[in-house]
Amino acid sequence: MQTPWEQRFAYAMHGMSSSVIRELLKLTEQPDIISFAGGLPAPQVFPVQQFRQACDHVLATMGAQVLQYGPTEGYTPLRQMIATDAGRVGVKVALSNVSITSGSQQALDFLGKLFINRGDYIVVESPTYLGALQAWNAYGAQYISVPSDENGMIVDELEKALRVGPKFIYVLPNFQNPSGSTLTLERRQKLVELADRYGVPIVEDDPYGQLRYEGEHLPSILALDSQYRGSAEVYDGNVIYLSTFSKLLAPGIRLAWVIAPETVIRKMVLVKQAADLHTSSFNQIVAHEVAKDGFIDEHVKLIRATYKERRDVMLETMEELFPSEVRWVRAQGGMFLWTILPETMDATELFKKAVEKKVAFVPGSAFYHDGSGHNTLRINFSYSSPEMIREGITRLGWLLREQVAATR
Amino acid sequence: MQTPWEQRFAYAMHGMSSSVIRELLKLTEQPDIISFAGGLPAPQVFPVQQFRQACDHVLATMGAQVLQYGPTEGYTPLRQMIATDAGRVGVKVALSNVSITSGSQQALDFLGKLFINRGDYIVVESPTYLGALQAWNAYGAQYISVPSDENGMIVDELEKALRVGPKFIYVLPNFQNPSGSTLTLERRQKLVELADRYGVPIVEDDPYGQLRYEGEHLPSILALDSQYRGSAEVYDGNVIYLSTFSKLLAPGIRLAWVIAPETVIRKMVLVKQAADLHTSSFNQIVAHEVAKDGFIDEHVKLIRATYKERRDVMLETMEELFPSEVRWVRAQGGMFLWTILPETMDATELFKKAVEKKVAFVPGSAFYHDGSGHNTLRINFSYSSPEMIREGITRLGWLLREQVAATR
Repeated sequence: MQTPWEQRFAYAMHGMSSSVIRELLKLTEQPDIISFAGGLPAPQVFPVQQFRQACDHVLATMGAQVLQYGPTEGYTPLRQMIATDAGRVGVKVALSNVSITSGSQQALDFLGKLFINRGDYIVVESPTYLGALQAWNAYGAQYISVPSDENGMIVDELEKALRVGPKFIYVLPNFQNPSGSTLTLERRQKLVELADRYGVPIVEDDPYGQLRYEGEHLPSILALDSQYRGSAEVYDGNVIYLSTFSKLLAPGIRLAWVIAPETVIRKMVLVKQAADLHTSSFNQIVAHEVAKDGFIDEHVKLIRATYKERRDVMLETMEELFPSEVRWVRAQGGMFLWTILPETMDATELFKKAVEKKVAFVPGSAFYHDGSGHNTLRINFSYSSPEMIREGITRLGWLLREQVAATR
Repeated sequence: MQTPWEQRFAYAMHGMSSSVIRELLKLTEQPDIISFAGGLPAPQVFPVQQFRQACDHVLATMGAQVLQYGPTEGYTPLRQMIATDAGRVGVKVALSNVSITSGSQQALDFLGKLFINRGDYIVVESPTYLGALQAWNAYGAQYISVPSDENGMIVDELEKALRVGPKFIYVLPNFQNPSGSTLTLERRQKLVELADRYGVPIVEDDPYGQLRYEGEHLPSILALDSQYRGSAEVYDGNVIYLSTFSKLLAPGIRLAWVIAPETVIRKMVLVKQAADLHTSSFNQIVAHEVAKDGFIDEHVKLIRATYKERRDVMLETMEELFPSEVRWVRAQGGMFLWTILPETMDATELFKKAVEKKVAFVPGSAFYHDGSGHNTLRINFSYSSPEMIREGITRLGWLLREQVAATR
């Protein structure tokens, strides 16, 4: 009397089926495709030698600790380094404000578990990061999207959303994934004030903050919130800040962090205890060994130079070849160029044709919780070499010319 | 108008507060305490040199892959190794039956997300693994416990529980945590048949299966279920099997695996994608490099010899010093000796007195979902050296003599 497995799965799981986008992206795994679909760092900037030395050193000198179980909140020297670094950019962050996660995706999952009751509303930018939607769908979240432009979330439209009583506001202020937009200082300040007035927390997701290729660095929402409240030795404001070593060192070590008020950190640690006990001691200690003497400050210059060159080659090729009806956001940093087709065109249809021409991207509708954005696409520039970028964007440019001509 | 954080947390989180047991265990962190409270492997058996060589080799030869994002289901050669190893013990396991998790705790969490709707019943042994209860409490599980003795779950009592319609049966058949008991072959077979008859899946949690110090190895419930159904190239039975590298290599790498029907694996991969994208590529590739040429088969001999000596010293010292009113389970393997005090004694009270004598264990009530088991305790023998075991058990023995005398 076997019950089929499908009948046993929890209600939330029935909403989690392999998405159309995931099926489409399988098409990009052919080896001869130039894929701008992923969000992968360039392997050329991985600090492989530093990892070799660090592994050897920590295994030789503290092998028993490196390979043993560790504390749920993370390796203390690594947490201390993160707290100190945050202090450099104007926030007083105590050790007790910092917790380590296995990548930022895990922090997104924990935020779902921590805050979302089925049916709760979350305010998101439109478009927003696909992985956040996937994480929170599993908890039955509903979304209120606030439109954005190349200066990020249009904060003037936020108040309406806040009146609904959402659990939190999710924002990627720097070189947003997917749109590449950066929230202006004025909008950041207004966001902090509005969130405070309505008593709604802000989740600031900042994987790319240090990957700026032009323009001035802007203070984090965490820093602005901290200043707004005045000084305190321990951060006790309204922002939960996420960042990661994935783009500064390497994603394969799955290492990220959360900065948040102590009450939130304590609860997240309980969630993490039940979810995976702790993040790999090995990876935390190795990453700390690599990073501890200011390595990242130096290394990020190489990453910036590498990605800036790739972005610039992509922008040049787009300007040269994309038809005038197609627009894109000149991202000041990060890893993506967001591209907008004429309203009459469909990016998923374009995707299928592009794959035939051996070039790929992500149709933008994946980044809208309601499936809108049919005429948008996300193009990654961090992973492919400049030569491949020129070749791939040339293929895409000719395809776009053909398609736009057909709709004239 | 700040809302306190506590008011924002999801309903499920209100049940997740720092437990009494967690607070108690903080007392064991004093450096001069001999703690038998943890469940830590002996650092003396960590293959540190093999890890050094493997790290160096994989970073030198495949650094770009090691540090890059990887597939959610895990590193294919590692999954293949696991599938092949399972084949050695009589189950046909295909690559598509295997998925990697960040420790078995993560698999427990995913099972909660995958199967448990608030209020659903799970059948557990009494006592059972605390981490499983913590994982599933977050999903609002309720429990039906089936009593167990030194031969594991009393399967004759299971049928009653199955009539309630539970989501699955959770069982640790080998050297159970905490009780040290091992489910007999007859009970395993009956469990497979009953679970099949009632259409209730079995979750088999097997972290210690290879750590046997006496007696004959017994087939896994997975293997028995597979035989019960007859041969198939891909496993498609009723068991979800969990095991881990934590006790065979090292827990600090957070590396475990699930063997299950393809339908379950596919859904778990979706859950994992939303939960942490994937387990560290670095750790998977390094572990595969260490393990690939049969290293674990050799290495486990050292682990067995080390832990057997520690267990034997602990058993001898108990026999010598514990008063006759105190009983314990002679575990044939694993890491724990389960100890039962006279009914009139309370293990939490004993714990407080033991900490004063600088020795610690876990009060057994932590392992009962209903908080019963007031007169039981779990004593770990894998972590401390034989000398420390003799000393710590001597302290505990004298304390027990004193306490038992006082109740006579």
